[in-house]
Amino acid sequence: MIDYRRLRVALLGAGAVGSQVAALLLKHGDELADRAGASLELVGIAVRDLDAPRETDLPRELFTTDAETLIMGADIVIELMGGIEPARQYLLQAINSGADIVTANKALLATHGPELFDAADQVGAQVYYEAAAAGAIPIIRPLRDSLAGDRVRRIMGIVNGTTNYILDRMDTEGAEFADVLADAQRLGYAESDPTADVEGYDAAQKAAILASLAFHTTVPLDAVHREGITSIDKAMIDSARHAGYVIKLLAVCERLAATTDGADAAGEASASRSAASRPLDDRSRPSGEAISVRVYPALISRDHPLASVHGANNAVFVEAEAAGNLMFYGAGAGGVQTASAVLGDVVSAARRHIAGGVGVGESTLANLPVVPIGHVTTRYQITLEVDDQTGVLATVAGILSDGGVSVATVEQTVVGSGDHDTEDGGVARLVIGTHTAREQDLSDTVDRLAASGVVERVVSVLRVEGE
Amino acid sequence: MIDYRRLRVALLGAGAVGSQVAALLLKHGDELADRAGASLELVGIAVRDLDAPRETDLPRELFTTDAETLIMGADIVIELMGGIEPARQYLLQAINSGADIVTANKALLATHGPELFDAADQVGAQVYYEAAAAGAIPIIRPLRDSLAGDRVRRIMGIVNGTTNYILDRMDTEGAEFADVLADAQRLGYAESDPTADVEGYDAAQKAAILASLAFHTTVPLDAVHREGITSIDKAMIDSARHAGYVIKLLAVCERLAATTDGADAAGEASASRSAASRPLDDRSRPSGEAISVRVYPALISRDHPLASVHGANNAVFVEAEAAGNLMFYGAGAGGVQTASAVLGDVVSAARRHIAGGVGVGESTLANLPVVPIGHVTTRYQITLEVDDQTGVLATVAGILSDGGVSVATVEQTVVGSGDHDTEDGGVARLVIGTHTAREQDLSDTVDRLAASGVVERVVSVLRVEGE
Repeated sequence: MIDYRRLRVALLGAGAVGSQVAALLLKHGDELADRAGASLELVGIAVRDLDAPRETDLPRELFTTDAETLIMGADIVIELMGGIEPARQYLLQAINSGADIVTANKALLATHGPELFDAADQVGAQVYYEAAAAGAIPIIRPLRDSLAGDRVRRIMGIVNGTTNYILDRMDTEGAEFADVLADAQRLGYAESDPTADVEGYDAAQKAAILASLAFHTTVPLDAVHREGITSIDKAMIDSARHAGYVIKLLAVCERLAATTDGADAAGEASASRSAASRPLDDRSRPSGEAISVRVYPALISRDHPLASVHGANNAVFVEAEAAGNLMFYGAGAGGVQTASAVLGDVVSAARRHIAGGVGVGESTLANLPVVPIGHVTTRYQITLEVDDQTGVLATVAGILSDGGVSVATVEQTVVGSGDHDTEDGGVARLVIGTHTAREQDLSDTVDRLAASGVVERVVSVLRVEGE
Repeated sequence: MIDYRRLRVALLGAGAVGSQVAALLLKHGDELADRAGASLELVGIAVRDLDAPRETDLPRELFTTDAETLIMGADIVIELMGGIEPARQYLLQAINSGADIVTANKALLATHGPELFDAADQVGAQVYYEAAAAGAIPIIRPLRDSLAGDRVRRIMGIVNGTTNYILDRMDTEGAEFADVLADAQRLGYAESDPTADVEGYDAAQKAAILASLAFHTTVPLDAVHREGITSIDKAMIDSARHAGYVIKLLAVCERLAATTDGADAAGEASASRSAASRPLDDRSRPSGEAISVRVYPALISRDHPLASVHGANNAVFVEAEAAGNLMFYGAGAGGVQTASAVLGDVVSAARRHIAGGVGVGESTLANLPVVPIGHVTTRYQITLEVDDQTGVLATVAGILSDGGVSVATVEQTVVGSGDHDTEDGGVARLVIGTHTAREQDLSDTVDRLAASGVVERVVSVLRVEGE
C-alpha cells in the first residue's frame, strides 16, 4: 500500500452526474489513487437541499449546504450544479483559493468561459471540462492537445442526444415530431420543457466550446447561428430519404479561407468578436481567415459516417488539414457516462497537482472573426409547391439564376391537380438541389421565389452538409 | 508580435513522417507558437545520409549526421527514425539531458517502453507518443487521460491499415489475398516485405501499447498472442459474409473478471508478467483480475461499427464500464496524417516546458497478469469438411459436447459427392457456430475432430468478436 499524498476533492451538486461521480470516487478510490499518484479524498458534497432524494446511496455525512466553506479547503473542485449562478461564483472562488476545477457546465463555459480561463491563468490553476461538450466522448483533449499541431478545417457534430433520438425515430419509424417527443419525454430522453434541446440551445453551447478549441479563438455564444428541429416533419424526412439523405441536427464549426471580400466579412463579424467577454487581443495575427459556427437541422448523405449515428448517441466528425478525417463516437449524455469524463478530469487534475507547475491556459490567440450566417456557403435543398403550368419551371430557374444560385438537380412531381383533362391548373412539387451558394443569396432568392406568383408555398429550405 | 520563450526542437529522422513534421513546423511556426506559448525552433534534423532524396524541400543547413550533438542542445527531441537502435540510445540521451521526447516508434515502445518511462520519471521528463498507436487518430490521450477515471473492459482495434485495406478489398471485390497484396504493394499501401503488417507484428506492438494504457499495466510484447491474415482466403470471406460477418484483423485487449480459477490464470500468466522489462511491482494491488491481449483475424457482425471501417482506415472501439461504448476513427497511417499526431505532441511538450513541473509518469500499478491465449473465452466459427454419411453429424456433435464446446448454429451443405445415387460417400461442409468457449477447450476439441476419422479437413477456425 503506497502512502499517497492526499488531495481533497469537493463536489458541488449531486444530481444525475454528481451522484455517479461521488459513488465512483468512493468505490474505485484505490484504483484511482494508483493512476493519479494521489489519494482522492471526497471531502464533501454541496447541495441546496440535504433531504432531496438521491439516485445513489451516498454517506449522509458528506452532504453540506455550505458550498463556500467546502470549496475553501479543497484541492480540486468539481462543479456539477449547472446554471450560471452560483456556479460561476463558486468556481471563481475555487480558482482563487488555489484549486483546480472540473466542470461539465456547458452553459457557463459558453457564456463565461473566458472569465474562468483568465482567472485560472492568473493563479496558474487549470480548468478541466471534458464532460461539457459531448458527454462521455473524449473530444476536448483531442481538439486541445492531439490536434494542437494541425489546422482544423471543419467540425460537424451530433452533440445533442435528445434531438438525435427524435430525428432517428422519425427517420426509422416514419413517426411525427410531436409523437416522438412525447415518447422521449416519457422515456426520460427529453426534459418536460424540451426547449434547450429541440431549439438547439444546448447544441449551440457545445458548438461554441468546440469551435473555441478547434480554432484557438474565443467564440461567444451569441455568435453561434442557431435553429432547432421543431419545423422538421415526416414529409421532410421522407423527401430527404428519397434523395439519399438523412436529417441530423448538426453543430458545424468551419474555417473560412481568406478571400478578397475578407475585409468585408471581418467587418461584419466584428460585432461578434467584440461581444466576447475577453476583449479583442491586439496581439492577434490577422490571417484574413474567419470562422462560422452554426447549429441547424441539415441533410447529410446516408453514406456519411454521421448518418449512422443512431438513437441518443453523439459523434463529432473532424476534418483537419494534416490528420484528414477523424470521428469520435459514443454516448452523449447519461449520468454514469458523463461521470466517466468528469473522473478522467479529476485524475488529470490530481496528476497536475502532484507534478507541480502552473496550469496550461486556453489558446485563443488566433482570434478569428466569426462571420454571420449570411456569409456561409453550403449546398441547399429547396422544396417548393408551384402552379403546374407551362413555363413555371423556367420562371423558377430564372429567379434562381438571377439570384446567383446554381441548380444541380431538379425533381418535379405532381401533388394535386385542378383538372386532369388539361396539362395545367394543378399543383406540382419541385425539389431543387443547388450547387454551393452563399446563404444570403439563397435566402434573398427564396424570398423572391415566394413572392413570384408562380410559387404557391415554400415547403422547406434545408442545408446539405458533409460534401 | 509576442516575444515567446524559444524552445529548441531536434528531429531525428526525415522519412515520410519526419519530412512532413519538419515542413509543417517551418510552415506553421507562428501559429504553433501562439498555441504552445513558446517559439518552436527546429534546430536540426539528424539523418544517416545527407544526400538521400527527401519528400519535401527542407533547408539543407538543417541536416546533420551528428545526432548526439543535436540532442545535447535540444528542449524537445522528436524521434521518427524507427527501429530499436540507435533510437533507444538517442531517446535515453535526450531524456537524461533534460529534453521531453516525442516518438512514433511503436516497436521501441512495445519492447523498451518501461525503460524509457522509468528514465523519464527519474528526471521528471515526459514521453509523448500519440502517433505510435493508430496514426493520426487521437487515442493515447483519451485512454491515458479522459478514461483515467473509468475502467476499460475491452478494446477492439483495427490498427493496421495495410491488412484492413487487403481484407476490405477481398470482401468487396471477391479478390484473393495474393492478388490484393500485390496490388497494395504497387499502390504503396504495403511494403515490399509485408511481413510486419500481414503477420500481425505491427498490430501486436500497437495492442501492447493500447493495453498498457487501458489497463494501467506493463504489457510486454511477448505476452501478446499474434496471428496474421495470410491464411485468409476468398472462401473464408464468402462464408463469413453468408453468416452476416466480415473478417477484420483485430487487436483485442480485454479485462477478464476475477474467477474461481483466478489463481490458476495468474499462475500461468506469471511468465508473461515477469517478462516485462519492469520487474513485478510489489506494491501492486492484487484484484484477481487479469487481461488478455491478442491480435488475430476475427469475424465481426456486419452491424458492428467496426465492420464499416473501409480501406486503409483505422478505428479503435472501446468498451468502458461507465462511459459505455466509444469509437475513434481515422487515418491509421500516412506521412502527413501521422505528422499531425507528432506535432500535437510537440505542442503539448512545449506547453509543459513553459508551465514547469515534472512530467506525469505512466500509470502501471494495476499490474494485471496477462493470461495466455488458452484462457481466453470467445465464440468460434468452425468450418469442417466431413464424409457425407449417416451419423457423421452425431459424431461431430458428440466430440464437441465432450470437449465442453456448446453448439449455437450448424449449417450443412454438400460440396462434392462420390456417388449421386446413394446418400453416402460424398463430402459435406459443416459450418458450426459455437457459444462462448475457452480457447484451450476449443483447440483440443478441434484436434480431436481432425483425428476422428469422419472429418476430412478442418477448413478454418475463426473467432467471433464484438458480441
